[in-house]
Amino acid sequence: MSEKSSDAESELRQGEMAVVLPPQSDAGLYFIGTIRTPWRTRQECPKRGSLDGPICSIVVDERWRMALTGLAGHRRIQVLYWMQRARRDLVLQTPFSTMRTTGTFALRSPVRPNPIASSIAELVSIDGVTLQVRGLDCLDGTPLVDLKPEHGVAGE
Amino acid sequence: MSEKSSDAESELRQGEMAVVLPPQSDAGLYFIGTIRTPWRTRQECPKRGSLDGPICSIVVDERWRMALTGLAGHRRIQVLYWMQRARRDLVLQTPFSTMRTTGTFALRSPVRPNPIASSIAELVSIDGVTLQVRGLDCLDGTPLVDLKPEHGVAGE
Repeated sequence: MSEKSSDAESELRQGEMAVVLPPQSDAGLYFIGTIRTPWRTRQECPKRGSLDGPICSIVVDERWRMALTGLAGHRRIQVLYWMQRARRDLVLQTPFSTMRTTGTFALRSPVRPNPIASSIAELVSIDGVTLQVRGLDCLDGTPLVDLKPEHGVAGE
Repeated sequence: MSEKSSDAESELRQGEMAVVLPPQSDAGLYFIGTIRTPWRTRQECPKRGSLDGPICSIVVDERWRMALTGLAGHRRIQVLYWMQRARRDLVLQTPFSTMRTTGTFALRSPVRPNPIASSIAELVSIDGVTLQVRGLDCLDGTPLVDLKPEHGVAGE
């Protein structure tokens, strides 16, 4: 997962625009686990997860085991994960699938200043620190950033 | 926004459990703008945003202006923001509103390893780099992390 972007990925498609990134970041994220999926290349990944897609696993780091308490009572969860291979400097993008240029914030593409993906997944089971879910769309080995119930209970 | 947690906030409620945080972070976030709301203290903040709540502003940094291109065509947007005053080390929490102890990942509380909040907001207008929205629940001055359309278009 540490490979550099290839030269081809650094090229801009027609209409795309990059900016200079800020000299430093403003806050630090902890990776709290790892997502295991059937997809080993970006070409294999679905564009978006489907609740009737294949089962994927989320393996939460031992440090956070107790934080899973009570999660099994929720049928749908929100999963935040870090699209670590995506470039962060594009403000205009031309998705290959549409070839229509638009702003980064008008797309759910992984390419964005903070490449955090957000998906709603169906929670199939939890066994220890391993969750089985449906609805994800990311590469095998993608770092986990957060898990939340899809909807909170009033006051929570 | 840089004030330290007070002593009272560092105390644990009954049933709460903290862990030692990792020695370093794994990825860096850029704050890409600032959210302006009517709420100056946590006590004033609603527990969760409402689409018929007051209008709040999102002011995007100039660097990312072009990334807003096309966003005005979306009625609802997903807003990610950084709850910078929340502690990050609790795995079990006892919300004051319920006094029922449960795991951090079974709550949408700002207190979590990566205090990223995710809300769906109604996009009322965009003028330059300033968005008017309804549906947020955060303190005035909260750093913006991402904007996405609520739903992507197939292939985007």
